[in-house]
Amino acid sequence: MNNFEFFNPVRILFGNDKIEKIGMQLNPTDRILMTYGGGSIKKNGTYERIKAALSNFSVFEFGGIEANPKYETLMKAVEVVKKNNVDFILAIGGGSVIDGTKFIAAASLYEGSDPWDLLIKNIVVTKAIPFGVVLTLPATGSEMNSGAVISRLETREKYSFGSPVLFPKFSVLDPTLTFSLPPHQVANGIADAFIHVMEQYMTFPSDSPIQDRFSESILQTLIEVGPQTLKNPSDYSLRANFMWSCTMALNGLLSTGVTTDWATHMIGHELTAFFGIDHGATLAAVYPALLTELQEPKHEKIIQYGSRVWGLSGADLTARNVINKTEDFFRSLGIKTRLCEYGLKQEDVAPIVERFRTRGWKLGERKNINHEVVEAILKRALEPYRS
Amino acid sequence: MNNFEFFNPVRILFGNDKIEKIGMQLNPTDRILMTYGGGSIKKNGTYERIKAALSNFSVFEFGGIEANPKYETLMKAVEVVKKNNVDFILAIGGGSVIDGTKFIAAASLYEGSDPWDLLIKNIVVTKAIPFGVVLTLPATGSEMNSGAVISRLETREKYSFGSPVLFPKFSVLDPTLTFSLPPHQVANGIADAFIHVMEQYMTFPSDSPIQDRFSESILQTLIEVGPQTLKNPSDYSLRANFMWSCTMALNGLLSTGVTTDWATHMIGHELTAFFGIDHGATLAAVYPALLTELQEPKHEKIIQYGSRVWGLSGADLTARNVINKTEDFFRSLGIKTRLCEYGLKQEDVAPIVERFRTRGWKLGERKNINHEVVEAILKRALEPYRS
Repeated sequence: MNNFEFFNPVRILFGNDKIEKIGMQLNPTDRILMTYGGGSIKKNGTYERIKAALSNFSVFEFGGIEANPKYETLMKAVEVVKKNNVDFILAIGGGSVIDGTKFIAAASLYEGSDPWDLLIKNIVVTKAIPFGVVLTLPATGSEMNSGAVISRLETREKYSFGSPVLFPKFSVLDPTLTFSLPPHQVANGIADAFIHVMEQYMTFPSDSPIQDRFSESILQTLIEVGPQTLKNPSDYSLRANFMWSCTMALNGLLSTGVTTDWATHMIGHELTAFFGIDHGATLAAVYPALLTELQEPKHEKIIQYGSRVWGLSGADLTARNVINKTEDFFRSLGIKTRLCEYGLKQEDVAPIVERFRTRGWKLGERKNINHEVVEAILKRALEPYRS
Repeated sequence: MNNFEFFNPVRILFGNDKIEKIGMQLNPTDRILMTYGGGSIKKNGTYERIKAALSNFSVFEFGGIEANPKYETLMKAVEVVKKNNVDFILAIGGGSVIDGTKFIAAASLYEGSDPWDLLIKNIVVTKAIPFGVVLTLPATGSEMNSGAVISRLETREKYSFGSPVLFPKFSVLDPTLTFSLPPHQVANGIADAFIHVMEQYMTFPSDSPIQDRFSESILQTLIEVGPQTLKNPSDYSLRANFMWSCTMALNGLLSTGVTTDWATHMIGHELTAFFGIDHGATLAAVYPALLTELQEPKHEKIIQYGSRVWGLSGADLTARNVINKTEDFFRSLGIKTRLCEYGLKQEDVAPIVERFRTRGWKLGERKNINHEVVEAILKRALEPYRS
């Protein structure tokens, strides 16, 4: 086990009675900005429940945070924060709204000239407006971590940033809020959480049995409840287990003491930036190709995963079968797993390879995924699904 | 899944390089009280390493906190805190020192007339001197939770208390500090952590697959590394996995959304209070008896546990076999699992049953363990080990 530090002070309020208790987490004099996305919360009653819970507070609103939240949009929210002396932000949504809120929280107190520097100059964020979360779309785990991914329209780039001051003060996880989600968003959420686990687990053996088994626990649970919750969107228990899986998949626990990968995310981010493919769907397309390309260095963990998570044994326990099981799981959720299914061709992804080449990045747990390996992975991802 | 709240702000510093970084967790002006036990830290070098790490601070000391820390002892430490205006306490030891330190931290700022009231009057602790931990004996999980158990000599009673202000600010988990532990302490630690998991897991199915699998992850790991780490006390990796298992076993994560048991601990505490049997050893003696007595209401989970943790199947997968496997695991660690092996007889435990009768407690996840069931459990625990 590698040496590590672990710290996660997010208060989780889990259950169908928790929205009504948000007020207890706030100071009576707080001036609160509600941030949200396209307005689905106004259709399914979530907005009204939250407004009622905040009836004793001064509340402002900023809606319209889009998927893959844009710097340009978020800076408008920063103006609302400053103009109204907001003390606390309440993010209501999925990863995009929460990530966007983390940026708003940091940028509002940033004393430099241009908050964009927070994303590109590795500036340590030391101050942020405190914020809480009401999660409506389980997927990214942002509700229980201190990181965020922000996009910039003009350059088609996605940037990650984070800071210990960007943990939510609390996150409400109410499974009933997810009943009305469109199926493809649930499917993408399942894929996102699944790959979050894999990025921390599918590397090389490091004598960390607790971390391995916790990862396998989440994978098994996602395989178990994922397809079921798609078929039964109002089954509370299934949604609860899906929700808790997503949160546990990326709160820092699985990565304690182990070396992590994250190459699939880095490649997937570019597919979103260039072609607008949903984040979860990009991961489902890249991952089977990446595992195939890197099946030798990852062989031991692929076999462990195939045995423990998929129950394969004997002659069935081959890397090929394990990878096929994984890809077919994504397809069983209705997610495309080949870039050609999005109409993409080799020449379309060339700019992505070029971007990795110019950056000179070496990705993965062994830092051996350079632009040539990225090209090979994308080539595999472009091939048609096996007949 | 039941509705729940989860909050755990303890910063974990894990690894063999972390003692030297303690100073970074403290304020430069902190006046620090080091609390510890019988002085083993002075023999194995731990004391010197910590003193060196604190060389820039004003440091006071309070040694001699005994196993099952006594109110009478701890009140002497409270005097040291008050006399020296201590700002921060650093607990160096296992569960007894940490639990004792939690009481010292709370009692030092208690404004009532008698700090004993903190234990017997359900007083909400709202203030405590901040404290950190250097863990030397993995077992109780106290390094990552906010609870404590304190004993009183004169009445032979053990009391639990806790408060959100009693989370350690940080806990250093350095596996090398455990290399010199006496084997029986390591064995008891393994049993303690194992039962901590069982108290949260071995109840009834509640559709909480993540929590179940996380519990099974820790049980499997303890079974795997427990006997090995006893044989190879200086194997870093084994000690690291043992240590992390103990911490994860009781930090609030496993009990999210599920109904818990804790009857074995309640009965075990009395065996310690009356007969001075080590805490972990009391659990190993009570648990097989409790599982046998309650095998009907716990049947479904016993079978799940036998299948997933012990790999039993077919005709071998019976409650009896599962319970025997569990008892034999404790015996493989060198722990006695029958009270007769401590020379106890039926009449010796009668005062314990009487104590449960007068308290009128109903224990367990179904609140159906009254003093009569306690008597039946103790009777089974008194029987000789099967030949």
